[in-house]
Amino acid sequence: MRRPKAFGFDVFGTVVDWRTSIARESAGFLARIGRGDLDAEHFADAWRARYQPAMAKVREGGRDFVILDTLHCEMLVDLLRHHGVDVDALDPALVTDWSHAWHRLAPWPDSVAGLARLRALAPVVTLSNGNVALMIELSRRAGLEWDAILGAEHARAFKPSREVYLSTAAACGVEPNDFCLVAAHHSDLAAARKAGLMTAYIDRPMEYGGASAPDRDQRQDWDYEADSLTALAAQLEVPK
Amino acid sequence: MRRPKAFGFDVFGTVVDWRTSIARESAGFLARIGRGDLDAEHFADAWRARYQPAMAKVREGGRDFVILDTLHCEMLVDLLRHHGVDVDALDPALVTDWSHAWHRLAPWPDSVAGLARLRALAPVVTLSNGNVALMIELSRRAGLEWDAILGAEHARAFKPSREVYLSTAAACGVEPNDFCLVAAHHSDLAAARKAGLMTAYIDRPMEYGGASAPDRDQRQDWDYEADSLTALAAQLEVPK
Repeated sequence: MRRPKAFGFDVFGTVVDWRTSIARESAGFLARIGRGDLDAEHFADAWRARYQPAMAKVREGGRDFVILDTLHCEMLVDLLRHHGVDVDALDPALVTDWSHAWHRLAPWPDSVAGLARLRALAPVVTLSNGNVALMIELSRRAGLEWDAILGAEHARAFKPSREVYLSTAAACGVEPNDFCLVAAHHSDLAAARKAGLMTAYIDRPMEYGGASAPDRDQRQDWDYEADSLTALAAQLEVPK
Repeated sequence: MRRPKAFGFDVFGTVVDWRTSIARESAGFLARIGRGDLDAEHFADAWRARYQPAMAKVREGGRDFVILDTLHCEMLVDLLRHHGVDVDALDPALVTDWSHAWHRLAPWPDSVAGLARLRALAPVVTLSNGNVALMIELSRRAGLEWDAILGAEHARAFKPSREVYLSTAAACGVEPNDFCLVAAHHSDLAAARKAGLMTAYIDRPMEYGGASAPDRDQRQDWDYEADSLTALAAQLEVPK
């Protein structure tokens, strides 16, 4: 297996632990609005469960592209209404701040060091559905250093649409078969492989709090497999 | 003057010394093709002189957006033909490599340190006409660390078109009047100001080898003025 000329990273779940961070922040916001009765981990899972349907309206439903910040806010409002919250009575600044909890996700313990080691080998860019402002704030807080923020907002489309993978590789000036998606999700890797990219799977068993992943039936043999970004770096650092 | 919430940087001339690098690389390439008779500094100036007309065809001439790498290559071919070089007889890989001399520009002595200090205050992004692949390679070689690569390729338009300034600020999630363009060019700063941005002028008297700048008649009083990125950082680091 030859070494990739650039790496594109899925971020939510692969580089950062969205569930722990969203549950912790939501516990605080739920208490502030007098709904400490709701379970914060279930709330985080229910928020994330609205992610694919929201993007599907853009991918397949003819909705014009909007950044993920917009969808995260709409998903939050929908979830709060589902629980009977009168969203119109809330401070809009509080709702925006809550929706920006996705800007404040904590990295997995190996992410900062692993990313730095991979970056010493080749350019590392985001290939995430997260928008630029989200990725900038998240990365500055977490200490994640990228060569560029690409993916959905650059492509004006959401994964797993083929053009997101191809436009990210093209922007880096790299042929698809020299460009490697790094992701914890079989569905994401399967779409990248169909577009001609190399694939690196990172096992993140705690992404869903220990529950099994929704895309486990899409498992394939990926070009690289590792249980952390540092372990992936160690595989690639071996002299050729 | 309040502190900007994010900084967008012009790169060619402001952060890197294009003329010295392009002249040095072109001297080598000219020798390789048997045209060591041509003056490399004049060659660099003539290459750069084709920059505005090439972009004008995109801005005003109805040409579809193309990345700057493409224009740099076309400008080089045009310049070589102007000097009577049979470009079709050259190795295409040599021409591409020569056109990518713009990926290998050296930073001004204060750029790496100044950028790092400004980045400690607020996000720093490129707001350049250079494309993503160019900026990635240039920045990795020079040790320039950005929060995102934005500007022309993200906007699919070239400066000084208004949408390049506004789309860069928007991608960062910052209002135009909180977003500061940092540039060595009055023409660039004037367009940014018209779009509502804050402005920081960096004096680079050696950009044109000591010759006066073509846009000196567009000088205004800018929000910040400094003779280096470290000096700009020092102004902004003053406690409020």
